[in-house]
Amino acid sequence: MDRCIAIGILLVCTSLGLAADGGGRLRPVPFTDVHIEDAFWGPRIRTNRTSTLAACLKQCEDTGRISNFSKAAGKIPGKYEGRFYNDSDVYKVLEGAAYCLAQDRDPQLEARIDAIIDEIAAAQQPDGYINAYYTVMEPDKRWTNLCVMHELYCAGHMFEAAVAYAQATGKTKFLDVARRMADHIDGIFGPGKRTGWPGHQEIELALVKLYRYTGEERYARLAQYFIDVRGTTQLENFEHPEYMQAHKPIREQTDVVGHAVRALYMYSGVADVAALTGDPSLFATMDTIWHNIVDKKMYITGGVGARHAGEAFGDPYELPNDTAYCETCAAIGLALWNYRLNLLHGDGRYFDVVERAIYNGILSGVSLEGDRFFYVNPLSSNGKHHRQPWFGTACCPTNIVRFVPSIPGYVYATDDEGIWVNLYVQSTAKASIPSGPVKLTQKTDYPWSGDVSITVEPAQPAEFTLSLRIPQWWCSSPAVKVAGRPLHDMVLDKGYVRIRREWKPGDTVELSLSMPVQRMQAHPQVTANVGRVALQRGPIVYCLEAVDNGGRVADLVLPRDAKLAAEKVADLLGGVVVIRAQALRVDVPSWEGRLYQPLPSAKPAQLTAVPYAVWDHREAGQMMVWIPEAVGLAATQPAAESVPKK
Amino acid sequence: MDRCIAIGILLVCTSLGLAADGGGRLRPVPFTDVHIEDAFWGPRIRTNRTSTLAACLKQCEDTGRISNFSKAAGKIPGKYEGRFYNDSDVYKVLEGAAYCLAQDRDPQLEARIDAIIDEIAAAQQPDGYINAYYTVMEPDKRWTNLCVMHELYCAGHMFEAAVAYAQATGKTKFLDVARRMADHIDGIFGPGKRTGWPGHQEIELALVKLYRYTGEERYARLAQYFIDVRGTTQLENFEHPEYMQAHKPIREQTDVVGHAVRALYMYSGVADVAALTGDPSLFATMDTIWHNIVDKKMYITGGVGARHAGEAFGDPYELPNDTAYCETCAAIGLALWNYRLNLLHGDGRYFDVVERAIYNGILSGVSLEGDRFFYVNPLSSNGKHHRQPWFGTACCPTNIVRFVPSIPGYVYATDDEGIWVNLYVQSTAKASIPSGPVKLTQKTDYPWSGDVSITVEPAQPAEFTLSLRIPQWWCSSPAVKVAGRPLHDMVLDKGYVRIRREWKPGDTVELSLSMPVQRMQAHPQVTANVGRVALQRGPIVYCLEAVDNGGRVADLVLPRDAKLAAEKVADLLGGVVVIRAQALRVDVPSWEGRLYQPLPSAKPAQLTAVPYAVWDHREAGQMMVWIPEAVGLAATQPAAESVPKK
Repeated sequence: MDRCIAIGILLVCTSLGLAADGGGRLRPVPFTDVHIEDAFWGPRIRTNRTSTLAACLKQCEDTGRISNFSKAAGKIPGKYEGRFYNDSDVYKVLEGAAYCLAQDRDPQLEARIDAIIDEIAAAQQPDGYINAYYTVMEPDKRWTNLCVMHELYCAGHMFEAAVAYAQATGKTKFLDVARRMADHIDGIFGPGKRTGWPGHQEIELALVKLYRYTGEERYARLAQYFIDVRGTTQLENFEHPEYMQAHKPIREQTDVVGHAVRALYMYSGVADVAALTGDPSLFATMDTIWHNIVDKKMYITGGVGARHAGEAFGDPYELPNDTAYCETCAAIGLALWNYRLNLLHGDGRYFDVVERAIYNGILSGVSLEGDRFFYVNPLSSNGKHHRQPWFGTACCPTNIVRFVPSIPGYVYATDDEGIWVNLYVQSTAKASIPSGPVKLTQKTDYPWSGDVSITVEPAQPAEFTLSLRIPQWWCSSPAVKVAGRPLHDMVLDKGYVRIRREWKPGDTVELSLSMPVQRMQAHPQVTANVGRVALQRGPIVYCLEAVDNGGRVADLVLPRDAKLAAEKVADLLGGVVVIRAQALRVDVPSWEGRLYQPLPSAKPAQLTAVPYAVWDHREAGQMMVWIPEAVGLAATQPAAESVPKK
Repeated sequence: MDRCIAIGILLVCTSLGLAADGGGRLRPVPFTDVHIEDAFWGPRIRTNRTSTLAACLKQCEDTGRISNFSKAAGKIPGKYEGRFYNDSDVYKVLEGAAYCLAQDRDPQLEARIDAIIDEIAAAQQPDGYINAYYTVMEPDKRWTNLCVMHELYCAGHMFEAAVAYAQATGKTKFLDVARRMADHIDGIFGPGKRTGWPGHQEIELALVKLYRYTGEERYARLAQYFIDVRGTTQLENFEHPEYMQAHKPIREQTDVVGHAVRALYMYSGVADVAALTGDPSLFATMDTIWHNIVDKKMYITGGVGARHAGEAFGDPYELPNDTAYCETCAAIGLALWNYRLNLLHGDGRYFDVVERAIYNGILSGVSLEGDRFFYVNPLSSNGKHHRQPWFGTACCPTNIVRFVPSIPGYVYATDDEGIWVNLYVQSTAKASIPSGPVKLTQKTDYPWSGDVSITVEPAQPAEFTLSLRIPQWWCSSPAVKVAGRPLHDMVLDKGYVRIRREWKPGDTVELSLSMPVQRMQAHPQVTANVGRVALQRGPIVYCLEAVDNGGRVADLVLPRDAKLAAEKVADLLGGVVVIRAQALRVDVPSWEGRLYQPLPSAKPAQLTAVPYAVWDHREAGQMMVWIPEAVGLAATQPAAESVPKK
């Protein structure tokens, strides 16, 4: 259906082809219609269900996060436990559980979730308000401290969870709770009502999600209001406006500053509102901010937020390795935002960022066993940084538990012209396009191999476009066969090969992307990486761990002419491709008592790199992503220039 | 004469061969007996006299530093002007003037200095106390705040100036003032008297100097007391003990911490006391601290003090380039200390440090014109760091004005065996050794050339050892000829070639040190310099300045196989050897909109490096010492791995 959304002073009335779950140029094929059956994401999603979800639910129970709702409902006595934003963790775990149920409707899990939803619903106040901290501790102080406290943030996570649970199960009890809270908030804030915005953004994207599922336009208007009003006036406790991106109105922001997770949740909401309104000023702002981040402030792992202080973005090219913050939530926020920008523009560059984050800086956030988590994801370590079972502020584990099972929703999208393939993941899916439903069967060993085959099965022959994303890491022209015949005269259109033809049931497309190991360099202004290279193969960024490299990596050097060999090792870290090279190890004794010397010596050393995402699973030790190229190459120097002996 | 110094609890009574101006193993040939006549130091010393000394005297007059003494004398009314330690600047300028007068007894200058000394003498109180700040402002508060205020520090600089002036002119009025102040201090502090030590070290080395010139052993005992008692107890306002190296007794200190100038002045005093006492515990402490600094905390320029905060030493290998503090005074302190350690041990490694500092990190502190000064000497610049005519805290200009003309005293030393040549500087000198006086005539274009000839003229043939220092930067066996015949079977003994023979008047020694351009690397733990090299030729460390390199240096890359050519340019920066190379310039447009890419392109670029000490004399722009070796070498890569275009 078409909708005309006219809100506030920035009225942009456009006729948009909005599906109930869509907006912008593309519509995702929903996670409920995609089944992943591969050797990479399949085990991750299963482990997320069996281990991470179980661990998060247990932690939410053990730490009082769930009983806080029971206390707010007056069912049990006692004070609120934990941090004032802990409700949000419960909602995020429920969102993750909903994605799990969409793949496998486990009655036991569903009953457990229903019971938690009952506690949440009981905690809702007669006017729709729901927040366990305020209800238990300071019922008279509701909505008095928007900048510092997290009522709107928690509400946003509830909306997301409630929509996901309704999508997955068809049950609406949780959704009704969410709608009543949204209506309550909408009764307080907005044009002609109270001026306010959340100190921690999140509700904006959640309100759009709630609008898309329910069709209630007030929710979309409220999302737009929160975005438009932000930074236009002062609020109570408004002490660190840059920290929360409220130092300027959104349309005047050109550099990303402050708390990384707040920023990226907000930009995700901005992308959603831009999709609904078509507002060109928001498109322009997003483009400026996107370049600021992706061209200047993003780690090669897709991690963002260079600074521990304020969990914040740094200056352009300020990307230290050892002190990188790279909160797991921030990498997830980067993926959420770029996923939305891709839907908005149909441009593969946004999915390049999604792919960089999901295979590296997001997946590093959780152990292969699913029960330990990184909050901080540095690009080098002295061996003392390890995943933890939980955190007092548990945003990262509970973001992992909802993000990993949402991956099926990232694989495909559609528009009126046809089907878009954004991720290469072995899977089956059902896409709905104007000519009718199309079954898709994708076979691949991606990300370890670049060979992909996709069998297309429309109910009957139909003309449509199949758009295959060509990842940024791949440099040459792709090799594509359709129904066994090589495709010539391909045009790369915004990162996609677009194949329009009449597709017959059973037609197979074969895409072949060779995967050389690439020596990536960083922009010369990234001082931390001058003279260093990072190894990347396909979307996978590698690191060196001490355990594979004789106990130390800080003294390893990778000469420019070293040959790099990729090798699949089935029994290592769940089955990974490692990279091996003949490298050099700085001869540390040659530096004994020397701070400067003309030509330190180095000895040959076998170097083994493993995917960054799976580091810290074995014996603790040094880790580094960016490897020096040019320290200690005396072995290649003429003997005449020997080290002075005194 | 031999002296037996027995003081305090750490009594070490040894019989030492002490000259009035000596101590330890070697005795310097005093600055009054060495005349420099070269093209490098000669102009610097002349400029110091004509420009720096004049500028410093004028500043001392214009800023009230001299009239402060007149006010303290009651000759003129008014408040003390400027910082409470400003007396020290006047003393340091007088010390510099004394060295100038030793080379050229200019009556006009001498009269001007005598007049200032009259003002100083008039400010001395009846009990010998002299400090303009306290006398004018807080006469009742003398000696109440040793940690923060600088009475002992100022006194130390007075002692040094008074000794130098007596040595240069034979006049003793200033010396008498100094002795009365020293006696006053000795009457207050020491065993059985008041416990105390200076918040800013300096008086320790000055008391030893005063002892050596006057023979008054109480001064040496007081120096030893200040060193021994430091850090053994608390003082008033004792809030930052590490800042002033009073966190532990000296003999328990293993890592250099805190304010760099304080530390190095103290260690100089420790070396002096160790020379007098032979105390093995001080020798051990000095060796430990020396390795801590020289192996881990010294810039390649001889600059020290990595941190602006506290003007302090950093952690081991913490040697950032752009934020390096490297106060000019600290480099001077490093030279003062290593000069003393060389005299103590007769080991060339200490003079290697002296040489590194004087040709680089000290000389950078003053402009070629002698009238502008660096307080901070970073190893890279964005083009906004420039020498200034003066500073509110003027320690650096007034250290330069006394250090530069003291260089003649660094060239030669003697012991009972013969003569030591420590610096290669074209000069004539008269050395006194047991066999009689020896005239030395040294001819060289050092530091631009490593060819040196030294003609030895004893009054009559005499057997003694001539020890030639072989600098650390020189890697192979030196080529030495004596009286025209090549010397074989040389032994390098602690950094010296030692030639013992019967020397006849007119015998000439020819030393030939080839001077290849060296690509210096830093210890791999110096993260700031990973993948970078610094160019050094002889003792001269080079830098790149924008003005010589197309307006930018931050994007220059020096491939490992680039040929480096040295070329003397007579009309550049007073006549310097520059280094030229065919390098690469990162193709900045190839990085447009890219943060990471496999193989950025670079274009050939001519690179010109100039001595670091003379940077910032021309058009302002970027400067860097440490040059990346391995960024942007696409030009040398196979074309197949081209940059992806999307």
